[in-house]
Amino acid sequence: MLNIAITAGGTSENIDGVRTLTNVSTGRLGWACLKAVLDYFRKKEETAFRLYYIFTQTAYREELDETHKNVVDFIPVSDAQSVYEAVDRLTSRVFLSHFIHSMAVSDFTFSYAVTPSKLAGEIHSFIASNGSFTPNDIERILSFPQSRYPEDRKISSDESLILGLKTTGKVISLVKKNNPQTFLVGFKLLRNANENECMKEAKKLTHKNQCDLVFANELGEISEGNHCGILVKGGEIIARLAGKDRIAQGLVEKMMESSISLPLESSCL
Amino acid sequence: MLNIAITAGGTSENIDGVRTLTNVSTGRLGWACLKAVLDYFRKKEETAFRLYYIFTQTAYREELDETHKNVVDFIPVSDAQSVYEAVDRLTSRVFLSHFIHSMAVSDFTFSYAVTPSKLAGEIHSFIASNGSFTPNDIERILSFPQSRYPEDRKISSDESLILGLKTTGKVISLVKKNNPQTFLVGFKLLRNANENECMKEAKKLTHKNQCDLVFANELGEISEGNHCGILVKGGEIIARLAGKDRIAQGLVEKMMESSISLPLESSCL
Repeated sequence: MLNIAITAGGTSENIDGVRTLTNVSTGRLGWACLKAVLDYFRKKEETAFRLYYIFTQTAYREELDETHKNVVDFIPVSDAQSVYEAVDRLTSRVFLSHFIHSMAVSDFTFSYAVTPSKLAGEIHSFIASNGSFTPNDIERILSFPQSRYPEDRKISSDESLILGLKTTGKVISLVKKNNPQTFLVGFKLLRNANENECMKEAKKLTHKNQCDLVFANELGEISEGNHCGILVKGGEIIARLAGKDRIAQGLVEKMMESSISLPLESSCL
Repeated sequence: MLNIAITAGGTSENIDGVRTLTNVSTGRLGWACLKAVLDYFRKKEETAFRLYYIFTQTAYREELDETHKNVVDFIPVSDAQSVYEAVDRLTSRVFLSHFIHSMAVSDFTFSYAVTPSKLAGEIHSFIASNGSFTPNDIERILSFPQSRYPEDRKISSDESLILGLKTTGKVISLVKKNNPQTFLVGFKLLRNANENECMKEAKKLTHKNQCDLVFANELGEISEGNHCGILVKGGEIIARLAGKDRIAQGLVEKMMESSISLPLESSCL
């Protein structure tokens, strides 16, 4: 029994109930990966598998037919913390043979909001009442100022605003931590990067999170129906792929070819 | 010939190509208003009207039948600036009898991103090299620091982040500025507010933008199928409405009843 997880879509961090910090992702590549996995097993006439699809509300989805519905568990998530918890729970409880992490998870979440004038006042007061001070003292104020908006106050739209954001837990790091045998596919989206730079970042991601396969692409190359990039394995480009469906197919094929000596029986850790 | 404009959905401000600051709005209330207007004219057997529907990409929409398609102009927008331009253009060129502004337009747009450590360093250096300084000097740095990320650089996910946001042009103020005769319906969404506070804010909005009608509601009261609030005209509650369709119907009825002495012929300014 193979258990495969796919994450798809972009997360949204709540700021004040009416505004969010959102990661842009249609979820179409994740959905194409789901279809490619279902297709792969259909061709092999293999039915001993289960899919876990972790998705955000705005992620693209289609209706599945009844046969396929029975093999896919849909797990809805919203912000980075909810993805972290869902992935931690899943990877702790189920032995996943493969994990395709196509979701754009926010690196940051809301910490505080403050007006520049109030923050400037707080820094000025602090310095005026302390003879000597270091950059660290100022950084401490900037990290969580006392002059910030109270949590339940609506943010005024009449003056400019400063948002303080803190980093979120890295979802991708959970996969190998909870099960070093899971085959991990990572994604890297870059801005203003050529193929060499994509390669460099793919290697970094591979190393940092022990990815078995990385798909890297440049943001400028993504547009409707024209999504292309490189598939990197162990520091080598093993495919150049264009178009979401072709990328998903190529990626799933390489993933299934690469993964050997997986325990076929143990479905639970 | 009556020309009616409706805005719907929530805007998204680009931060760095992969992240956005987004205003939460499904666009369902705006769509319900469109349907209520079409319904109103159908019942009156009136065909001399035109609708302008200004909407964001994620706003809820349904397919219209052929007859209705011909009377609605769909105007897509994305961020606050694009809404401002679209509304300015429309209200300058077309004599609008009514304007229903249900869109959640961002009050802020991206100005800069900086790490707390770099910003603290900049403030520290400034103070160290200037014997005397005022809160204004610090506010000036906070408004647009030199230590900010260069525009084309990807934001590092390894340390926390400060986002500087600047205010956007107020779309609603354009309506009466470009045509004082347009009947303007405004919306006010509040957090942790009782009916008295909703009333107070409705009056403020009425006064500030010369709204002829305001629908005000508390955020906590909105949930799937349970959207309720008060309809305020000239400082009085003229209806308490619940449910998106009922709100839209009530609002459109009151709007059409209230609007008298409109020039029926002049369709252009």
